[in-house]
Amino acid sequence: MAPQVLILNGPNLNLLGQRQPEIYGAETLADVETACAALAASLGLGTDCRQSNHEGELVTWIQDARATAAAIIINPGAYSHTSVAILDALNAYDGLVLEVHISNIHQREAFRHHSYVSRRAEGVIAGFGTEGYLLALRRAASLLAP
Amino acid sequence: MAPQVLILNGPNLNLLGQRQPEIYGAETLADVETACAALAASLGLGTDCRQSNHEGELVTWIQDARATAAAIIINPGAYSHTSVAILDALNAYDGLVLEVHISNIHQREAFRHHSYVSRRAEGVIAGFGTEGYLLALRRAASLLAP
Amino acid sequence: MAPQVLILNGPNLNLLGQRQPEIYGAETLADVETACAALAASLGLGTDCRQSNHEGELVTWIQDARATAAAIIINPGAYSHTSVAILDALNAYDGLVLEVHISNIHQREAFRHHSYVSRRAEGVIAGFGTEGYLLALRRAASLLAP
Amino acid sequence: MAPQVLILNGPNLNLLGQRQPEIYGAETLADVETACAALAASLGLGTDCRQSNHEGELVTWIQDARATAAAIIINPGAYSHTSVAILDALNAYDGLVLEVHISNIHQREAFRHHSYVSRRAEGVIAGFGTEGYLLALRRAASLLAP
Amino acid sequence: MAPQVLILNGPNLNLLGQRQPEIYGAETLADVETACAALAASLGLGTDCRQSNHEGELVTWIQDARATAAAIIINPGAYSHTSVAILDALNAYDGLVLEVHISNIHQREAFRHHSYVSRRAEGVIAGFGTEGYLLALRRAASLLAP
Amino acid sequence: MAPQVLILNGPNLNLLGQRQPEIYGAETLADVETACAALAASLGLGTDCRQSNHEGELVTWIQDARATAAAIIINPGAYSHTSVAILDALNAYDGLVLEVHISNIHQREAFRHHSYVSRRAEGVIAGFGTEGYLLALRRAASLLAP
Amino acid sequence: MAPQVLILNGPNLNLLGQRQPEIYGAETLADVETACAALAASLGLGTDCRQSNHEGELVTWIQDARATAAAIIINPGAYSHTSVAILDALNAYDGLVLEVHISNIHQREAFRHHSYVSRRAEGVIAGFGTEGYLLALRRAASLLAP
Amino acid sequence: MAPQVLILNGPNLNLLGQRQPEIYGAETLADVETACAALAASLGLGTDCRQSNHEGELVTWIQDARATAAAIIINPGAYSHTSVAILDALNAYDGLVLEVHISNIHQREAFRHHSYVSRRAEGVIAGFGTEGYLLALRRAASLLAP
Amino acid sequence: MAPQVLILNGPNLNLLGQRQPEIYGAETLADVETACAALAASLGLGTDCRQSNHEGELVTWIQDARATAAAIIINPGAYSHTSVAILDALNAYDGLVLEVHISNIHQREAFRHHSYVSRRAEGVIAGFGTEGYLLALRRAASLLAP
Amino acid sequence: MAPQVLILNGPNLNLLGQRQPEIYGAETLADVETACAALAASLGLGTDCRQSNHEGELVTWIQDARATAAAIIINPGAYSHTSVAILDALNAYDGLVLEVHISNIHQREAFRHHSYVSRRAEGVIAGFGTEGYLLALRRAASLLAP
Amino acid sequence: MAPQVLILNGPNLNLLGQRQPEIYGAETLADVETACAALAASLGLGTDCRQSNHEGELVTWIQDARATAAAIIINPGAYSHTSVAILDALNAYDGLVLEVHISNIHQREAFRHHSYVSRRAEGVIAGFGTEGYLLALRRAASLLAP
Amino acid sequence: MAPQVLILNGPNLNLLGQRQPEIYGAETLADVETACAALAASLGLGTDCRQSNHEGELVTWIQDARATAAAIIINPGAYSHTSVAILDALNAYDGLVLEVHISNIHQREAFRHHSYVSRRAEGVIAGFGTEGYLLALRRAASLLAP
Repeated sequence: MAPQVLILNGPNLNLLGQRQPEIYGAETLADVETACAALAASLGLGTDCRQSNHEGELVTWIQDARATAAAIIINPGAYSHTSVAILDALNAYDGLVLEVHISNIHQREAFRHHSYVSRRAEGVIAGFGTEGYLLALRRAASLLAP
Repeated sequence: MAPQVLILNGPNLNLLGQRQPEIYGAETLADVETACAALAASLGLGTDCRQSNHEGELVTWIQDARATAAAIIINPGAYSHTSVAILDALNAYDGLVLEVHISNIHQREAFRHHSYVSRRAEGVIAGFGTEGYLLALRRAASLLAP
Repeated sequence: MAPQVLILNGPNLNLLGQRQPEIYGAETLADVETACAALAASLGLGTDCRQSNHEGELVTWIQDARATAAAIIINPGAYSHTSVAILDALNAYDGLVLEVHISNIHQREAFRHHSYVSRRAEGVIAGFGTEGYLLALRRAASLLAP
Repeated sequence: MAPQVLILNGPNLNLLGQRQPEIYGAETLADVETACAALAASLGLGTDCRQSNHEGELVTWIQDARATAAAIIINPGAYSHTSVAILDALNAYDGLVLEVHISNIHQREAFRHHSYVSRRAEGVIAGFGTEGYLLALRRAASLLAP
Repeated sequence: MAPQVLILNGPNLNLLGQRQPEIYGAETLADVETACAALAASLGLGTDCRQSNHEGELVTWIQDARATAAAIIINPGAYSHTSVAILDALNAYDGLVLEVHISNIHQREAFRHHSYVSRRAEGVIAGFGTEGYLLALRRAASLLAP
Repeated sequence: MAPQVLILNGPNLNLLGQRQPEIYGAETLADVETACAALAASLGLGTDCRQSNHEGELVTWIQDARATAAAIIINPGAYSHTSVAILDALNAYDGLVLEVHISNIHQREAFRHHSYVSRRAEGVIAGFGTEGYLLALRRAASLLAP
Repeated sequence: MAPQVLILNGPNLNLLGQRQPEIYGAETLADVETACAALAASLGLGTDCRQSNHEGELVTWIQDARATAAAIIINPGAYSHTSVAILDALNAYDGLVLEVHISNIHQREAFRHHSYVSRRAEGVIAGFGTEGYLLALRRAASLLAP
Repeated sequence: MAPQVLILNGPNLNLLGQRQPEIYGAETLADVETACAALAASLGLGTDCRQSNHEGELVTWIQDARATAAAIIINPGAYSHTSVAILDALNAYDGLVLEVHISNIHQREAFRHHSYVSRRAEGVIAGFGTEGYLLALRRAASLLAP
Repeated sequence: MAPQVLILNGPNLNLLGQRQPEIYGAETLADVETACAALAASLGLGTDCRQSNHEGELVTWIQDARATAAAIIINPGAYSHTSVAILDALNAYDGLVLEVHISNIHQREAFRHHSYVSRRAEGVIAGFGTEGYLLALRRAASLLAP
Repeated sequence: MAPQVLILNGPNLNLLGQRQPEIYGAETLADVETACAALAASLGLGTDCRQSNHEGELVTWIQDARATAAAIIINPGAYSHTSVAILDALNAYDGLVLEVHISNIHQREAFRHHSYVSRRAEGVIAGFGTEGYLLALRRAASLLAP
Repeated sequence: MAPQVLILNGPNLNLLGQRQPEIYGAETLADVETACAALAASLGLGTDCRQSNHEGELVTWIQDARATAAAIIINPGAYSHTSVAILDALNAYDGLVLEVHISNIHQREAFRHHSYVSRRAEGVIAGFGTEGYLLALRRAASLLAP
Repeated sequence: MAPQVLILNGPNLNLLGQRQPEIYGAETLADVETACAALAASLGLGTDCRQSNHEGELVTWIQDARATAAAIIINPGAYSHTSVAILDALNAYDGLVLEVHISNIHQREAFRHHSYVSRRAEGVIAGFGTEGYLLALRRAASLLAP
């Protein structure tokens, strides 16, 4: 079976395409997830796409991924900057972790310059728009390919 | 139809009137919400009052208000100091935002002196007791009135 | 006799309505003081309105209020951030103190985020425009009313 | 009836025994809870053991304990370092609060050296492994015993 | 002629004896000045006692003392912590400078722990009550005596 | 009529030539003002020279300049480092602002390295001695000349 | 022979029971040491109890314990916060180290929140009163028991 | 003609493949540049690959790119953390800037967590190994394609 | 019997008069102690003068003073800045504590600006030379006199 | 022979007139150097104008100036904020040093507020546009003139 | 007589060769002292070698060296980072002071990066193993030789 | 063949003997290099001595030393405090690294107290004058000798 990739989006990313399109673009989260599934399939990967506004739910999904996913691509949104719980869940996960931010967080408020998740992720990509998810998938394919 | 105001209370505010009445007064949250509804009606506004201990639920309610409310009056409680997710939800909201704290947070522990929500709120009122909600409603009426 | 409220404005607030009307509105300080006097009268309060650019003069007026005023509503302007002397004068005052800022100081330069006066004021209101003075008067009436 | 102790575990502690056993040991959370119940019974105490990954759920359980528990033994996990909401819930609780960390948090990353919960807990025990829960129960028994 | 000592008191010290007598004692500033004059006379010194709430007036008096006083005993009050202008005036003065604080400023709020004036004063005395002025006069007599 | 330049000097600058001549030179403030007037005349500018030890007076003069002066050349002295009130007054002024320091403040105590006024001034000149005023006048002439 | 535990108390702990009994309780250090010896015996451990006000003496005793003790239970008192020398001595010791504080140091002055000893101790217990020593002994017994 | 991409590598990247291959991999810089050229060609882009240990030379090359390149992909190496000059050169460049780090700099020493270049780059990719250059090329192609 | 004052000097004060006489004067510690005894006798006080280079010995002497002295005048020397143990011993002492520094510590290196002892001492005197001890004795007499 | 002035420009100043003309103006560096030479000649000074993007080259030129130039007017550009090497070279130079910044660096990013060169320069001028070079030349002429 | 060098070792250095030999080597302190004495003799110097775990004893020995030693070579161990008292004793000493650390303290915990003693020592050598003492002796011989 | 030692000097060290001889001594760099070569020969080592003002050139030389030198003795001058690029080059070098500073950098400006190179160097010697190079050579000989 194809290695599975959990694509996880944190709080407010369900609004993608609806808020500040000049920053985040016009694509909706569903558009992004569809594009990810298509590219993943072409790369020999499966995807499981989820979004939650709840820190605890994200923690639980990461825990569950221990049994089901070979990699996690995560855009933690605001929880990047505040959630040690998500970091701890990722620390308990043995697979590949790649972190995506749609905008370049280093050009925003100072409190967005630090991400707890970056302490665990193998790679971090920021400011590549929604294409960042696709590039992360390519990286996952490179590392997971037989 | 009257413009709607979402009155949102964060964690532990469901205990209002039950804990530390010397600080927070003897009114319950239900008392406050009743008083708000009455004043709002007299000012030509409708209200929708909600409380949650869950950060994610508050985020979702703020997102929902994009379609339903002309203003949000929010007492984020402890999440004032820790939640970037609520700030981001408010950033995606186009209406009026007013922030209320029952006590004067500037006289409490240092970590309570900073509020993420204040980066977005048009106005902040602290230390006016539960009357703060009513004064915020008056401000909303001034700005929303035809 | 009606309880008296000293309404004190600090440096540069004499320019109200003349500078940056997009931030501070078009009302002059005289307009604000007139509106305060009218509302106060309707609430059973008297007012004494003063403005000074001199820190020392503000200190002296606060000292004098010990004998004459049941409450002080103060917009310390720039001295909010730099004047321990005004804080000390307020510490020697036994009545109610309410602090007003016309704009939301938490959205301006970092040095404006801290106010010495907030260490003493029962309540702080910021970003409610000149309506903040009126709302503070309402609060004073609630607390001073027999 | 025996005094009740609420034993509360925060995010990721449901993984106990499954992750990093060289740090956290091989016992599962169920093992720990069973051992706690047994020791508590021998000490004349009852126990109610709960775990959640949700900050809001932990807040609610602490609020509920106001009516049901004479003491709370809490391992807040990652929320130790980030949750003012849990601190506030504990501040509204009148019983005994004891804080447990399985590992010695002072030897881990700097952001783990500070715990909001320690501002409220009567006692804190860290680095005693899962035996820390049992020692906290002994302390509770000493203080709650008639 | 006897060497003259300028005894300078800063903002709010005119309230001495009227506010917080449990901290500052029941003596008024006039009492203190009378006691200083008496002790000074017995030590062969003259005194000139002044108080102002105005930073600028204190600056001017220090400038004037260049021509008239062999020593300045100064309690800068709140301006200790905020006034570089007073420090600069003292830097332009060649005589002896002794700094007095009635209370022990090191046990009060953190912003009171630093005094600009201490960068210039030969000696600093804090927490000796109003007796601090008298002890400073004794020191001045020791150093100015022929 | 020739454009007018307000030349404003802050606290202790009235002592120019009298204190620390090895640092500040032997010229008095009157000498400097005379030289400024002469150069200004030759450049087609008028001057109005003032000095005050009072922060409030400086604020008022800056406010008055809104109606009378095309430029302000200001040496705020010690108030550079402590006065938000002067910054606010300058913010309400629409003309050209140039800041002069006689000595190089970057080589003095750390608290002199920051100037609130520099946040508003178009240009800052420090360490050019009293010639700094003349060079600032030349700059004003370049920018104000028809 | 039973494994030996060195129970070490730092400066001012010889006053136990004599100062601030509302904080530290009424037991003397001798009482505590007697209770420790009794519990230790029941757990199959021997104890050697010492107290010193001298940092250097504590260092020497820790060095000596390298040859004689299987565990050290240490309440470093004030030296927790200031002594790198004690940390270094403990670093040179191979046995078990447990750190005890009678009060919850996290609720006292900020400089008491950090302990150098915690960088070396396997476990830290604070705020459990003098019972903390006994619980630490239980932990030692768990780890040292055959 | 195909849009040109300047691929710029900073100090010590000429050692790629020769130092710490467990971190940086076994590929040499020439290998990477070859792979970039191949992928670029397939994407309709041209490449110009350069490496220098000299900050000044990198500045000059960026200046030159104003006339020749539609995008710059830069791995500034150590200069990421220390060079304002490179930032200024990039600020004077109007094309697309993408920043690549082979390792995840957020998991290394604290001084590597900040990059001046990130203040200018549209996107930043770190920890994707040498594949990061290829992914950045894909992004450039997406944005530069007609 | 006359109230006893313990006059305690910390490390290196035994060198008084031998080192840096331009700073500390030519008097030896014996000279100072003789002068103190003489003045104390005239004020109706007895003195016990001690000096130690050992932090632990100073702690012990302060503990002993609980039974013997009505006041402690202490110049903690270097331990002012580093000894929490001495602070704790003083916290366990109920009598009057006055702190003396011969030089003005606020004009020396930054690490000398903070004194742990000042958190406990009723009064602090610095920069009055060895006369500081005598002035502290006068204060003790004022407070201890019947 | 006329005293020589080395006019040194740091990285990216070769782009003057080509980048951000709204900030830096439309003059090229050649224009500025020509204007400097002309003014210098009229003031009886010679000029040697150089620009480099290399820190090391600037260091070498400053070293060379020890033998050839009576003054250095330097705009260190980005190296103002990062180069201790340039500071050290200037420290080894005995002549006059004047520092010029075209824009007001105090109104830009925080890392531009500090200049190592200001620790050595007699004078600093910022925000006077390219006229700053000319005013610095006038200052040099005042100080170097016979 | 040969100039004498006091070789002083602080806390825990008596364990040299017994603890962490992979860091500190296998030589004992006695070995080092013997090697120092031999080299010193060949260089025309005498040695006096001492070690103490007591800060106060080290202070006293430094004081005594004022009369007996031409140089002090000191490895303050942990007291490097915490002892102002030792710094003060060295400040009262007129001879040569050289500071030795066996390991490179700059590669250890952050609190070991600062040494109070370095403020007084002419030279500091760290990370040269026990050979550091011998190299310091060579330096002393260079400076003390006639 | 004798093991080679690269002796590297950074910016401004070419001025040795020409600037501030009271600090750096009268020896030129050539004198030092000659002395190093002579001592090295007597110790069975060869030397290669280089100096550059260019960070990039120093980086390149360190890279080259990977193939040619068994040890590097480096005085990075000003680049000690600012160059991550030199640190990275040294990190890629496998031989012995010893760091020399002629003066005691811990007694100079605060920004000179930290050296990036010290993170890599086995040993650091500062304040031993130019003899520091010779002592470092002795250390190299000890470690490289067969």
